[in-house]
Amino acid sequence: MVHTTHPGNIGAAARAMKNMGLTDLALVSPRSYPSEEATARASGADDLLDQATVYETLEEAIADRTLVVGASARLRSIPWPQLDPRTCAERVVTVGQKTAILFGRENAGLTNEALERCHYLLHIPTHSEYTSLNVASAIQVVAYELCVAAQTARPQEALDPKIDFATGEQMASFFGHLETVLTDSGFLHERKHEASIMRRLRRIFNRYQLEEGELHLLRGILTSVQRQHKKP
Amino acid sequence: MVHTTHPGNIGAAARAMKNMGLTDLALVSPRSYPSEEATARASGADDLLDQATVYETLEEAIADRTLVVGASARLRSIPWPQLDPRTCAERVVTVGQKTAILFGRENAGLTNEALERCHYLLHIPTHSEYTSLNVASAIQVVAYELCVAAQTARPQEALDPKIDFATGEQMASFFGHLETVLTDSGFLHERKHEASIMRRLRRIFNRYQLEEGELHLLRGILTSVQRQHKKP
Repeated sequence: MVHTTHPGNIGAAARAMKNMGLTDLALVSPRSYPSEEATARASGADDLLDQATVYETLEEAIADRTLVVGASARLRSIPWPQLDPRTCAERVVTVGQKTAILFGRENAGLTNEALERCHYLLHIPTHSEYTSLNVASAIQVVAYELCVAAQTARPQEALDPKIDFATGEQMASFFGHLETVLTDSGFLHERKHEASIMRRLRRIFNRYQLEEGELHLLRGILTSVQRQHKKP
Repeated sequence: MVHTTHPGNIGAAARAMKNMGLTDLALVSPRSYPSEEATARASGADDLLDQATVYETLEEAIADRTLVVGASARLRSIPWPQLDPRTCAERVVTVGQKTAILFGRENAGLTNEALERCHYLLHIPTHSEYTSLNVASAIQVVAYELCVAAQTARPQEALDPKIDFATGEQMASFFGHLETVLTDSGFLHERKHEASIMRRLRRIFNRYQLEEGELHLLRGILTSVQRQHKKP
């Protein structure tokens, strides 16, 4: 839960998670926490609140995650690969990656900056007339789908247990490297909308769900380009 | 909602219903209603609260219904035909009967007397350690399934017909360009398995369809790197 405003929603989310067998609640700079209201709404799930990790930045919270999914009610101007809760749950359960599912502030959702860290957007279907779900309700729906997916999943092996996907930290470092190379080469400066170019590049590379080895390959290319630039 | 104790739950239920395109909220002798707390939690769904019908008895509330389903967390001593939310939603949407779905008191659920009025029990899957869902959360899950069932029943248009994806020819040309740049920069020659490196790069860029605009962006980067190399 990122920048959550109302502690009651944190409590309700903890309960929703525990009901559905989830335990790992992470809070990114909540406005008011710990809080009596959160504990009251958590009902029998106060143990989840006690174990919740509080982070200052989203970056820290997702550093060790290999799949990052951001819940979003609105369709964004830049289209991002999108999942519905069912497909998302099936994927999380089957592939078994270390996953973070992000839920933003009550009135505004996730910022564009947060969404750019995501491999996928998660869109909960709603009626077109009133699309704004309460954040704990959104978590309830997603947690429910995860529970159903876990219960219906046959004792199947994970699709490819040996694949090491790149973590959030590795991806952040890759994008930093890419931006440096594009800045040094003049590519970004020649164009007006540097930020929007980096956003589009994040979108492209995030949706590939890069494996560690692939990331090393791309980093190798960037390093090779840098060496080339430095030659007299 | 039958004998609901906390008005906040009635408000949250109204919001959950409106989010999912449901409008017909019936309250059977709620303990405290109307209520400011209900209105606050309903957020933008206060119109649903205003339209809600309050009944004194369950009998009146279900008088014109041809299908009555009762939500129940516990397995009852008398086995009753049981549905999960998904099957229930598909049935309601497909068969199109006038349906009532009953949700009982917060701490105790529906009485046996109420359950006996039901054609089916509705059981929401949960984790075995903590099975007691908040009543508004339970309504959220069921409403969500009804919304999904209603949306998938309709003939849907294809997703986003306006996107121009890169053609096979454009992709071939892109990979040719990439290989040239990597050869000129020395990257491929420094490594033993040129073919396998290009294969891995193809695998990365092919596994998610690039849009034309994205391909142009990547080609722009390659061209910029080439210009840089040619500088004395």
